[in-house]
Amino acid sequence: MPADPSLTVAVADYVGIFVFAVTGGLVAVRKGLDIFGVLVLAGTTALAGGFLRDVLIGATPPAALADWHHLIVPIGAGLLTFWFHPAVSRLEKMINIFDAAGLALFCVAGALKAMDFGLGPLPSTILGMVTAIGGGMIRDILSGRIPTVLQQQIYAIPAFAGAAVAGFGHELGLSQLLLGIVGGLLCFIWRVLAIWKDWQAPLPRGSASV
Amino acid sequence: MPADPSLTVAVADYVGIFVFAVTGGLVAVRKGLDIFGVLVLAGTTALAGGFLRDVLIGATPPAALADWHHLIVPIGAGLLTFWFHPAVSRLEKMINIFDAAGLALFCVAGALKAMDFGLGPLPSTILGMVTAIGGGMIRDILSGRIPTVLQQQIYAIPAFAGAAVAGFGHELGLSQLLLGIVGGLLCFIWRVLAIWKDWQAPLPRGSASV
Amino acid sequence: MPADPSLTVAVADYVGIFVFAVTGGLVAVRKGLDIFGVLVLAGTTALAGGFLRDVLIGATPPAALADWHHLIVPIGAGLLTFWFHPAVSRLEKMINIFDAAGLALFCVAGALKAMDFGLGPLPSTILGMVTAIGGGMIRDILSGRIPTVLQQQIYAIPAFAGAAVAGFGHELGLSQLLLGIVGGLLCFIWRVLAIWKDWQAPLPRGSASV
Repeated sequence: MPADPSLTVAVADYVGIFVFAVTGGLVAVRKGLDIFGVLVLAGTTALAGGFLRDVLIGATPPAALADWHHLIVPIGAGLLTFWFHPAVSRLEKMINIFDAAGLALFCVAGALKAMDFGLGPLPSTILGMVTAIGGGMIRDILSGRIPTVLQQQIYAIPAFAGAAVAGFGHELGLSQLLLGIVGGLLCFIWRVLAIWKDWQAPLPRGSASV
Repeated sequence: MPADPSLTVAVADYVGIFVFAVTGGLVAVRKGLDIFGVLVLAGTTALAGGFLRDVLIGATPPAALADWHHLIVPIGAGLLTFWFHPAVSRLEKMINIFDAAGLALFCVAGALKAMDFGLGPLPSTILGMVTAIGGGMIRDILSGRIPTVLQQQIYAIPAFAGAAVAGFGHELGLSQLLLGIVGGLLCFIWRVLAIWKDWQAPLPRGSASV
Repeated sequence: MPADPSLTVAVADYVGIFVFAVTGGLVAVRKGLDIFGVLVLAGTTALAGGFLRDVLIGATPPAALADWHHLIVPIGAGLLTFWFHPAVSRLEKMINIFDAAGLALFCVAGALKAMDFGLGPLPSTILGMVTAIGGGMIRDILSGRIPTVLQQQIYAIPAFAGAAVAGFGHELGLSQLLLGIVGGLLCFIWRVLAIWKDWQAPLPRGSASV
């Protein structure tokens, strides 16, 4: 544990934004979008989940929009991906692990922020999950595909679980630091196991496996 | 007329949310989405129209987000659709009638809420229509198709008409109960007739009929 | 310079809304949407960029939603496009020039409004660009295509540049009128040159030119 947990959170926040932006930029490169498309997909993947949460709870303007540090990070990540995408692509396995860390951080932070704005534990859990997966969903819609998170990936469920730990634990009066660690680890480990073991979410009866 | 009209409205509200959620869940099942995709499409179809309205008029957090009863209903409807979709599919004609009732309720309630927030009758009419059709539009975008409401269905126009009765009638000082009944019945009857008679909206000259 | 610059801005605002709505209506006609689809695409193309900005900065309800004059213009433009689309299509080159004027106006006005709401110059520049291009992006998503602005068109970059002049110039205390003229002309001329010379935005290395 470092001496200052808030510094850890701030660093993790930037790492999460950076990695989410890289995944958005890679999707844009693979779709053949131009440099502006790469930057837009990098920015929305990294930030739009938090914007959605903030607009829904009335916390406007969203903190990440008002603070230029939060805008510079995805712009930088997008430019890096635009110029060095062959190298970035080779790191994709490592990116997926960092992406799981971003997912863990955002679901917990999103749920705790919603609790701070007076929402109950179930709405806060849902908003925590939206914070974590909303940017990726908008990335997919903008790039013309059905959001991958709706299709058999075990991605949203770990985010829901981590957010639930944070939201319901906060309701019980537990420490935010403890909830952040437990909820975040639950989400991160579940997501990494799902990648490693290739777990898939259940389909309706009669659906062909994709 | 039951003794307590507000109870009728509350029940109708839940019925509308439930039926909208079922239609969203069915689209997800047919697209081969997983259980999480079914829940997301159920939830957005049922609630996103109201969220859009509330975000636009500044009524945040949206009432249906802050109140867990409104969240449990689409989750339950989504799970039911996921497990029993063959049976649910067989009820589709009946679902379409209930869907018309949800459309009627949401367009009127949406327009009256916008009037309460100080908007004029034309903006309130548009927001009432958005309340009624917005969830279905987002459902279609998430499932990778052009919103069906933009393509020849007589679906939005009855919602516009019902919302206009509510918005412009409210401007004239008429009773909300009366406007709700007249506007709601207008929308409901028009929509049911359109299903029954297979009415279609006009296309631009030269467009091939779909 | 006319005697009353605010009148010029008001007229330009309606012209911008009208022309954006025509471009939205034309996309709808070409996709074979019905009359309601034409009106929805006309309205969202003209107004949704400003709605996005206003929702993000907390300026709700958006001015253009609360004021029925702003709603009547895209409805009228949509109906005109629906009925007279063969004639409108023949004017497309002229429409593109007016569209560049709308782009120039909206990027500058959007950035200045964000500055007025206390955002810094970089967030205001991004919001100015969103004001100018957001409606067209939602138009494209609703009509089932990847936003054209992400694909090699030089469209967003002039809007970004014009908004940056307004945002950073305002930070330096320069006159809004001067910034509006310089930023707007920069955007307009760049965009018109891009159409005329068929300039294209850079693609990632290895991408096939579309």
